[in-house]
Amino acid sequence: MQIALDAMGGDLGPQELISGALLAVERHDLRITLVGNEQVVQDHLQSTSASKTLLDRMDIVHAPTVVEMDENPVDAIRRKKDSSIMVAFDLVKSGQATAAVSAGNSGATLAAGVRKLGRLKNVARPGLASAFPTLKGPVVIMDIGANVECRPVHLYQFGVMATAFSNLYNVDKPRVGLLTIGEESGKGNALIKEAYNLLDRSSLNFIGNVEGRDVFQGDVDVVVCDGFVGNIVLKISEGLAEATMKMLREEILKSTLAKVGYFLARPAFNKFKRRVDYAEYGGAPLLGIKGIGIVCHGKSSALAIKNAIIGAAEMDRLKLNDLIAGDLAKGVDTGTAGI
Amino acid sequence: MQIALDAMGGDLGPQELISGALLAVERHDLRITLVGNEQVVQDHLQSTSASKTLLDRMDIVHAPTVVEMDENPVDAIRRKKDSSIMVAFDLVKSGQATAAVSAGNSGATLAAGVRKLGRLKNVARPGLASAFPTLKGPVVIMDIGANVECRPVHLYQFGVMATAFSNLYNVDKPRVGLLTIGEESGKGNALIKEAYNLLDRSSLNFIGNVEGRDVFQGDVDVVVCDGFVGNIVLKISEGLAEATMKMLREEILKSTLAKVGYFLARPAFNKFKRRVDYAEYGGAPLLGIKGIGIVCHGKSSALAIKNAIIGAAEMDRLKLNDLIAGDLAKGVDTGTAGI
Repeated sequence: MQIALDAMGGDLGPQELISGALLAVERHDLRITLVGNEQVVQDHLQSTSASKTLLDRMDIVHAPTVVEMDENPVDAIRRKKDSSIMVAFDLVKSGQATAAVSAGNSGATLAAGVRKLGRLKNVARPGLASAFPTLKGPVVIMDIGANVECRPVHLYQFGVMATAFSNLYNVDKPRVGLLTIGEESGKGNALIKEAYNLLDRSSLNFIGNVEGRDVFQGDVDVVVCDGFVGNIVLKISEGLAEATMKMLREEILKSTLAKVGYFLARPAFNKFKRRVDYAEYGGAPLLGIKGIGIVCHGKSSALAIKNAIIGAAEMDRLKLNDLIAGDLAKGVDTGTAGI
Repeated sequence: MQIALDAMGGDLGPQELISGALLAVERHDLRITLVGNEQVVQDHLQSTSASKTLLDRMDIVHAPTVVEMDENPVDAIRRKKDSSIMVAFDLVKSGQATAAVSAGNSGATLAAGVRKLGRLKNVARPGLASAFPTLKGPVVIMDIGANVECRPVHLYQFGVMATAFSNLYNVDKPRVGLLTIGEESGKGNALIKEAYNLLDRSSLNFIGNVEGRDVFQGDVDVVVCDGFVGNIVLKISEGLAEATMKMLREEILKSTLAKVGYFLARPAFNKFKRRVDYAEYGGAPLLGIKGIGIVCHGKSSALAIKNAIIGAAEMDRLKLNDLIAGDLAKGVDTGTAGI
């Protein structure tokens, strides 16, 4: 299996990305194509202490340009057809790679994936899913930002796609919830009310409406929402987690005794941090395209890149796209096929 | 000043509510009317150890029924005109109280406030605001759930009303941000794009779009969004904070050393908890009505009730409603007056 990694995207630079790639090939039977400025990539590979066996599993494909983080995605992919992210998806399209992974400009990765590979049959709108830690297993939220305005059928399809993706976490019959502001079926805006009806008629394991409070309890496996709401949930969660930890640290640093206490409790804190670390969840898969694309956080560490690559390989092994296409074809039952 | 408190609403029962009322009159020059079943309220008052001076500041107005937490709000206020929450707003309407405070059924409190008192001049839609802790001062988010479907003018008016409310926190020229999924002005859905233009033309101190990540950083004082998004932000934040603390506790309890560490760091943890405790922020004011109404969390502690009562008194002292009406009248400049 060959995974294409955009070796230029991301806030931490090629070194971190390449380290992630090396971590991935260390334990898993796969090859990685590093896409980017050949000289830069070569230099980084030569400076690592990785064994020859590992380095032998790395290929390089040259891409002369890079889409910058603050560029307009649609403009950028139109102008920079030779950028690392575009070339990575070219490799998927031509069959030279199974999946493309990028921590670069998210919008550009999204746009490149959809334009280059196209939509799976019956998929109205590809979207981004992401796993979040909860008190029990992970919860998959979709869409987290690809589709700002949605119709009910899109939400239903997100439910189908995210349910398929839940196979990565070995969830049996994923419980699907519709994110809204009250648990009764009539609660929410017009979009939610219609989406409720579609989900309710579908063959998904739909458990009804869920509220923000329910998301992190671990009693729902898939949470469906439009990309505007989903992106706000993602960013609010990141921002709150960050601010909370910062405030706690501030209070601890004010007292010597508390600092000693923190020192003693540090292993527990570290375990907690690992439990909530997004890096453990890799990246956000772009579901609904003919192929596999993973959008990673700009700040992705080597660990996050490793997990994103392994997630991509797993998506291929589980044939998730066949599953999605099959389930959506069955969507005839809900009267939504081909919409 | 006289504040009407719904003595029957809330998950913790009349005792907790009445304790909150006693805390409020202890340090502040105000009187409280406890609205509810007279016998129940009397019994609770007699069982407290509060001084005669404090008890003398409490009045009781009988209300024979209660809107239950799970009742349909609109039905309930139509049927139960003699319920504690309706009677509390009756007192405001007749001028016997300055404000009504309730920790009962939120939807019913909202509906009772709007129906009984009516909208302030030029207010298209009253809404709920709420203060959240950040790394710096509090941020006021509006609307957090009163208006599920909004038009751009509503968001603009939320900005005006929440800006006025920020006076409670002594914020000079509150910085107003529009919650969306990207910082550039073109980012967001159709509602956001139009609201951006209105806010940008207004005399508010509008700093542009803000993302979920920015909300808790303390660099924006007022965050504007529709009630669907705002309620999800509220509930996601509550749920995440709760789940995070639970996970941290679980990890700490697994190790004796960590437990010792936690014991030493406990004062810091407690200070942190106070810093993020919603109870410190009292309740959510229903802004845009002819009078003052505060919707408290169902789980409100005595401290939260005390702070809600004091917040209500402060809103009256600052003449916030005059401020709002005046600012909205000036809204002629944005072409939105009277919409």
